[in-house]
Amino acid sequence: MDSAEFRRRGKEMVDFVADYLEGIEGRQVYPDVEPGYLRPLIPTTAPEEPDMFEDIISDVEKIIMPGVTHWHSPFFFAYFPSANSYPALLADILCGAIGCIGFSWAASPACTELETVMMDWLGKMLKLPEAFLAGQVGEGGGVIQGSASEATLVALLAARTKVTRRLQAASPGLTQGAIMEKLVAYSSDQVVATLGTTSCCSFDNLLEVGPICNKEDMWLHIDAAYAGSSFICPEFRHLLNGVEFADSFNFNPHKWLLVNFDCSAMWVKKRTDLIGAFKLDPLYLKHNHQDSGLITDYRHWQLPLGRRFRSLKMWFVFRMYGVKGLQAYIRKHVRLAHEFERLVQQDPRFEICTEVTLGLVCFRLKGSNRLNEELLERINSAKKIHLVPCHLRDKFVLRFAICARTVESAHVQLAWKHVAQLATSLLATPRD
Amino acid sequence: MDSAEFRRRGKEMVDFVADYLEGIEGRQVYPDVEPGYLRPLIPTTAPEEPDMFEDIISDVEKIIMPGVTHWHSPFFFAYFPSANSYPALLADILCGAIGCIGFSWAASPACTELETVMMDWLGKMLKLPEAFLAGQVGEGGGVIQGSASEATLVALLAARTKVTRRLQAASPGLTQGAIMEKLVAYSSDQVVATLGTTSCCSFDNLLEVGPICNKEDMWLHIDAAYAGSSFICPEFRHLLNGVEFADSFNFNPHKWLLVNFDCSAMWVKKRTDLIGAFKLDPLYLKHNHQDSGLITDYRHWQLPLGRRFRSLKMWFVFRMYGVKGLQAYIRKHVRLAHEFERLVQQDPRFEICTEVTLGLVCFRLKGSNRLNEELLERINSAKKIHLVPCHLRDKFVLRFAICARTVESAHVQLAWKHVAQLATSLLATPRD
Repeated sequence: MDSAEFRRRGKEMVDFVADYLEGIEGRQVYPDVEPGYLRPLIPTTAPEEPDMFEDIISDVEKIIMPGVTHWHSPFFFAYFPSANSYPALLADILCGAIGCIGFSWAASPACTELETVMMDWLGKMLKLPEAFLAGQVGEGGGVIQGSASEATLVALLAARTKVTRRLQAASPGLTQGAIMEKLVAYSSDQVVATLGTTSCCSFDNLLEVGPICNKEDMWLHIDAAYAGSSFICPEFRHLLNGVEFADSFNFNPHKWLLVNFDCSAMWVKKRTDLIGAFKLDPLYLKHNHQDSGLITDYRHWQLPLGRRFRSLKMWFVFRMYGVKGLQAYIRKHVRLAHEFERLVQQDPRFEICTEVTLGLVCFRLKGSNRLNEELLERINSAKKIHLVPCHLRDKFVLRFAICARTVESAHVQLAWKHVAQLATSLLATPRD
Repeated sequence: MDSAEFRRRGKEMVDFVADYLEGIEGRQVYPDVEPGYLRPLIPTTAPEEPDMFEDIISDVEKIIMPGVTHWHSPFFFAYFPSANSYPALLADILCGAIGCIGFSWAASPACTELETVMMDWLGKMLKLPEAFLAGQVGEGGGVIQGSASEATLVALLAARTKVTRRLQAASPGLTQGAIMEKLVAYSSDQVVATLGTTSCCSFDNLLEVGPICNKEDMWLHIDAAYAGSSFICPEFRHLLNGVEFADSFNFNPHKWLLVNFDCSAMWVKKRTDLIGAFKLDPLYLKHNHQDSGLITDYRHWQLPLGRRFRSLKMWFVFRMYGVKGLQAYIRKHVRLAHEFERLVQQDPRFEICTEVTLGLVCFRLKGSNRLNEELLERINSAKKIHLVPCHLRDKFVLRFAICARTVESAHVQLAWKHVAQLATSLLATPRD
């Protein structure tokens, strides 16, 4: 494929994608396929000679789409939102074309520097304490990780390295093995200190935990994977109070801030803590500026060596929405969650299971777990909407998460009507 | 931005990207910017109101491009290739639009199933032993990781879990801590067992190492991050002999197989070894089919929870190039490396430092390290081509890696002429 054909096919693909997203509401949100559906539909080996583009794009509709769970359908209320916006799609096309691997400043200075500045922009949107920002002379700063799991692992390894060095400095006789045996990582039953858990979007109390960690010289990592995006709205910022006690903080703009996956934003107060844990300096990665103190080599901030130019997505999204546009987006989702909450509350057969703080409503039929499992089974078998459950204490609970960028009140109303009807028919069924 | 504007801007972006890649040869391969160049060029905070798309795209040329190291310039001979092909760019647009997060089969069956089948296609291209393929009933199978580092870490953790369980089954009194203290991970001075090291593309002897590992019940992980792509050509497949002794094998199609970053292909012989180490099953990720034995939940095969629909890139690339097209691409690069090798050999001032097997030539001026450091400094200051060095034993060596998809004999010839001229002027400089 030469560049002339790419121009043609690329524009066709842009139309294909726009058609897909415009028409997504008309597609069944959850697929009908059974396990193993795909293998018989395609050849057992790659073709020797090139296939035609027309055949491939037609196979996308014939083979791929029937097996897709449509995360961006306005009838998708499962898991948590996964960001998908046009500005991010545009930026990703550019990111792919530049195709640099930004493991060091020299490997593409723009890739590193835009990331540092975008993480400062985002930190300021959240009103993070100054200590987390890179600025021009700060000791802190931000980095884009692939996922919250990676951010947590990075924080854990940095914390381990730091405490190991401290203990070895204090008692030079201590072996690494002896230290390892004594180390403890504290976590709640959902994970590290968490703002907005996946199950029910609950919040740990940082103002209690934080001072204890600081006093005991313990590394405090805070994960706000989903909820973090809401902190750009002044009315939700209080949920982040106590972040000033943390050593590292992380949330996922790829969930709820319209920056397509993957983009997990992580900040640390002392960048030397990360660099100390991961420093990797073979000669082929060295460059003139690296010992100048002026630059950032992000390979020392993460587990993998390679990294894409992901800050372009942040730049495009922040500029094309503006902070006000992003706030409006968050507020719309929270408003829709409360709308659903009220609908549930008005139906005496149902109960709300946890306080609705952001875009997630945990609810259930008053009654047994078995009854709620059956209700969910009927909802997901009907495939008009898609939900997943969680356990809260011993209760089986349905999660209704506002997910799609294009979800509106009408979708929420339809979804509720559908759930209520299924409940009616379920409750009318004779039971053992 | 609505879908109508996306259609317009998306097509403009396709043209921008095609223009960029068509004209990349005319851009200076390595940028002139100094550390900190970018921050003063953009605002200190995100805009409150949306910016115009025209302004953003004009800033790409004004602010980003001057700081880009152009990895896809045919004058870029640094590090290793990073894949960039039009079919992969097209697939990535689609991947972004579908925007599913394929952590389980149910989260998007097509995402999981295409990945399994594409990994089988690729495994067959490499003539991997049948045990590594998933097929319909196999115990092995492939998974796309983000990077070779992740693949290695996954293999290490799986190996650790496996041996810990074996030892605890044999001696139920053993604590995990006691076992940990005894575990050893063997590696060469470049890493795990490696086919095609980064420094000089050397190869470990699997036929020696493999049987020892098998006899001693040690997990053998093989990393062929760069070289792996070449094994699709029968004349290079012998480099992979001995893979039959391995438990896990990994290489990066995102380096040399035209599948854009990230796409690191990893296979295991027993998928239960991975799943045993990483299994994570909160209720909100459970689905009806998961205990049927029929499906794959890839979240158990990797560190992060989230994952993109990366197999689309493989599918598009394999189909639009065909195996023959991919082989021709590998062979062109190897031929160009040998062309450069011959040019070096014909100049008595220079020496070749290691056997040229694939697309990397390690060479140096006969003489001191200092002399070679100065030569590299002059090459990279002139910015007509871009190289990075390595150390081989105590020698400072220049690495000439065939990287760009569009590099041809003319670029190699020009590059050599340039290096030879710089050497001439360097050698004419009076020295201390």
